[in-house]
Amino acid sequence: MPKVDLDAIEQVNRTGYPPPFDEQVGGRWYRRLAPATGLSDFGVSHVTLKPGSWSSQRHWHNGEDEFLVMLDGEAVLVEDDGRTVLRPGDCASWPKGSTNGHHLINESAHDCTFVVIGGGTNTGGGYSDIDLIFTPQGTYAHRDGTPYGGTKRPG
Amino acid sequence: MPKVDLDAIEQVNRTGYPPPFDEQVGGRWYRRLAPATGLSDFGVSHVTLKPGSWSSQRHWHNGEDEFLVMLDGEAVLVEDDGRTVLRPGDCASWPKGSTNGHHLINESAHDCTFVVIGGGTNTGGGYSDIDLIFTPQGTYAHRDGTPYGGTKRPG
Repeated sequence: MPKVDLDAIEQVNRTGYPPPFDEQVGGRWYRRLAPATGLSDFGVSHVTLKPGSWSSQRHWHNGEDEFLVMLDGEAVLVEDDGRTVLRPGDCASWPKGSTNGHHLINESAHDCTFVVIGGGTNTGGGYSDIDLIFTPQGTYAHRDGTPYGGTKRPG
Repeated sequence: MPKVDLDAIEQVNRTGYPPPFDEQVGGRWYRRLAPATGLSDFGVSHVTLKPGSWSSQRHWHNGEDEFLVMLDGEAVLVEDDGRTVLRPGDCASWPKGSTNGHHLINESAHDCTFVVIGGGTNTGGGYSDIDLIFTPQGTYAHRDGTPYGGTKRPG
């Protein structure tokens, strides 16, 4: 394959977050590159955040490493210990099991775009700022384990 | 970790290629980001190619998916079916097991930089244009299996 034809891969903004946690990610438009290009050893998402949008609720993964590289525009990375502006070429790593939650917020007036890689096995994870966890089964629950209902994380 | 401090990670140009196959990658300067940042589910290399340098001999992996995103400058991707210029934001996927070998050549007058991800398990692989294979043990051999000697792929 000479290069990935991004335009040929569906770009979606769907989320399984239960309301009202879905509101902040409405301007997160992403393409799943791995299945579309025959990769199965890790996941690859090509993501554009509209101004004001979040990459996710601030979260961590118990069993999946994540790596991000900024391609265009800028966003603010928020973690327990502060805020960092990410610009094109900047990279970030989030080892599985660290409960220092992370997300990106596009506080600029322009779109920003990044690629994010995920590997490992989903063994659940948590959200730093809200009453939400995700389970190894790909569902959402309150921190006390009570299910949110029919919502499921997008594949 | 707020963002990866690239300058704090050793940049090397070492290779285990047996001569004369090492010559074309002398201007390939890379940083291994995964171990340096606590990731183990996949590998991440941040690579700068000097003008004229190759990313590797043209190769494929039997058991490891690869994904690349161009960050700066440009390079020519060479595969069985032709040449493609990759520019910032361009992505390429190479599913494991495809024997359509690939590599990048910096034919420009300026450095180019990309990030490349590798996952899966090393079960060996081949080189499209030369009498070389790599083994599941991380060594190099002729296509007939005769070892090249003491060379080993860098970790």
